Amino acid sequence: MLKENRVKRVLDALKEMGLSQMLIVDPMSIYYLTGVYIAPFERFYALYLRADGKHVYFLNKLFTVPEEVGVEKVWYDDTDPAAEIVAKYLDHDSVLGVDKDLTARFLLPLMEMKAATGFVNASLAVDKTRGVKDAEEQELMRVSSDINDKAIAKFKTLIHEGVTEKEVAEQTLKIYQDLGADGFSFEPLVAFGANAADPHHAPDDTVVKPGDCVLFDVGCIKDGYCSDMTRTFYYKEVSEQHQLVYNMVRRANEAAIAKIKPGIPLCELDKTARDLITEAGYGPYFTHRLGHFIGLGEHEFGDVSSVNTDKAEPGMIFSIEPGIYLTGDTGVRVEDLVLVTEDGCEVLNHYPKELEIIG
Amino acid sequence: MLKENRVKRVLDALKEMGLSQMLIVDPMSIYYLTGVYIAPFERFYALYLRADGKHVYFLNKLFTVPEEVGVEKVWYDDTDPAAEIVAKYLDHDSVLGVDKDLTARFLLPLMEMKAATGFVNASLAVDKTRGVKDAEEQELMRVSSDINDKAIAKFKTLIHEGVTEKEVAEQTLKIYQDLGADGFSFEPLVAFGANAADPHHAPDDTVVKPGDCVLFDVGCIKDGYCSDMTRTFYYKEVSEQHQLVYNMVRRANEAAIAKIKPGIPLCELDKTARDLITEAGYGPYFTHRLGHFIGLGEHEFGDVSSVNTDKAEPGMIFSIEPGIYLTGDTGVRVEDLVLVTEDGCEVLNHYPKELEIIG
Repeated sequence: MLKENRVKRVLDALKEMGLSQMLIVDPMSIYYLTGVYIAPFERFYALYLRADGKHVYFLNKLFTVPEEVGVEKVWYDDTDPAAEIVAKYLDHDSVLGVDKDLTARFLLPLMEMKAATGFVNASLAVDKTRGVKDAEEQELMRVSSDINDKAIAKFKTLIHEGVTEKEVAEQTLKIYQDLGADGFSFEPLVAFGANAADPHHAPDDTVVKPGDCVLFDVGCIKDGYCSDMTRTFYYKEVSEQHQLVYNMVRRANEAAIAKIKPGIPLCELDKTARDLITEAGYGPYFTHRLGHFIGLGEHEFGDVSSVNTDKAEPGMIFSIEPGIYLTGDTGVRVEDLVLVTEDGCEVLNHYPKELEIIG
Repeated sequence: MLKENRVKRVLDALKEMGLSQMLIVDPMSIYYLTGVYIAPFERFYALYLRADGKHVYFLNKLFTVPEEVGVEKVWYDDTDPAAEIVAKYLDHDSVLGVDKDLTARFLLPLMEMKAATGFVNASLAVDKTRGVKDAEEQELMRVSSDINDKAIAKFKTLIHEGVTEKEVAEQTLKIYQDLGADGFSFEPLVAFGANAADPHHAPDDTVVKPGDCVLFDVGCIKDGYCSDMTRTFYYKEVSEQHQLVYNMVRRANEAAIAKIKPGIPLCELDKTARDLITEAGYGPYFTHRLGHFIGLGEHEFGDVSSVNTDKAEPGMIFSIEPGIYLTGDTGVRVEDLVLVTEDGCEVLNHYPKELEIIG
């Protein structure tokens, strides 16, 4: 059923942008607003919201949705011209807010038909609303991260002599499912030694060696909500140099988390972590932003980067994941999800961050 | 490395559309043209092709690509405004062909900057090229469908008293992998009895009963190329009525396949299958198009539907999948992949289509 509170928050945000209508196509945003999830593949799928309440839900006849969604449904089939059908329902005399994900395939014909007086990317109205989790969502995020904490404690026990990254990665889904998760929130990243220097390494046939770091960047999905955590362990032993790098990253993670409270610009969190790493001479090896928002998607709109001056608000949930990547040698990342609270933050991950030797 | 032959075919198609530049963003199309696959998530990722050969490959610093791709690389990071960087490289004095998947997020700023004299959906140039498989691709498609044939012979043995759809579906990945596949081309659809009446049913806890149809719509991916096949079996027994429906669908599949040859409009294939089903009184229960193109993606551009007047060409590969869906009762679909040849077609699936009782 249409979640009236969330729809109202989106319409309020649109009004602030001077808009009275918006075409939403991100299936996750539609799920957020209706409770109905459809994977439309290449088919057109949209929720059209209007300030006057004449919302329309555009559906392909192949989609299955509940009888009652609380919004007018318009069905079309694979042979219908979707953009023309949508155009009939739009208010042609005002600007249309469009989802950032609306593709050229549908946007260009709407423009050609002059289906609105203008077209603007209005996704901020939905994305910023989704960025601030309501109480129901906060609880679901806690549950998902709780499973992730339990899972990583099991994942580390999979590391033994002769095991490959791929063999470890292949066992993670079953562990998640046994813990009650519905699946991965993203393909697990398992990286040994120098492979960890690539922040997006895919598990391969590399065998673990004593002294290797063992990086797990993993997450599950539970009742639609995603978790995401990184821990870096060491197999059998750790060099002094690697210990130093690890502790640097961990300190950067903790220092950034310590600063979180309503009102702090997100770029300051990035700066806090980055300054620490830069002062130690590793600045060039921290090659990505500090964090990203997360919820129904494992990467949602919003990030914790040097250029995002948005301020932290209670209800926001994002990752704090500083890293140092030394090509050909090692990589370290320590990542938690945090929920901004009225007076600080709640860290959703509880798995310890002290350097840990395993195997 | 840039596949010069394929790039040339795309540029020739663009020229026919009066275009000299195109921005391609579909990661599969970029893989098709470069041999490099990246999953960009929300990050901008594009291959820009120009008639004058000054192609540009736009990459986020987090992506890992081979040193040598055979095209100029332009790197940006998460804090850079991607659209502005792209705009610098475009020919501002001519129309830009854009990928149908280019999202409003990047298209609207390019328009605002007047980065080209116009913007048109030029995906047909890439998609129609991809729709006609070259020899290398045809061989990869044969291999993928061969695994699928072997897999379905094993899947049917998973059906026994008390088993649920979900339990069966959960065993399919291992079978594919043991047969050499890299993974699913899509989540397997396993449906018992009335569940098969929903063409997109997700496997659930339904237990198989004697007399149920057992529908498998399954496919794997091998070296990037997808297979996709549907077979409908019957558990223990089959009613006369269900037998009749099955044979109707099978005949529709075979009649359409018998018509395939270069030059035949694809809509005629749909009509051939649909007429047979309609004459038997089941027209309203065949609720979707007859088939879709397939290759690097499990659903590629191009379909076999009542409105597609494009003609079959040697090298095209698509599905032929008539179905009858009787809500609350049963569903049947019989699907093969076919390759159009110089004088007819090669059916890529060899698993028999005679009605088969299992269990």
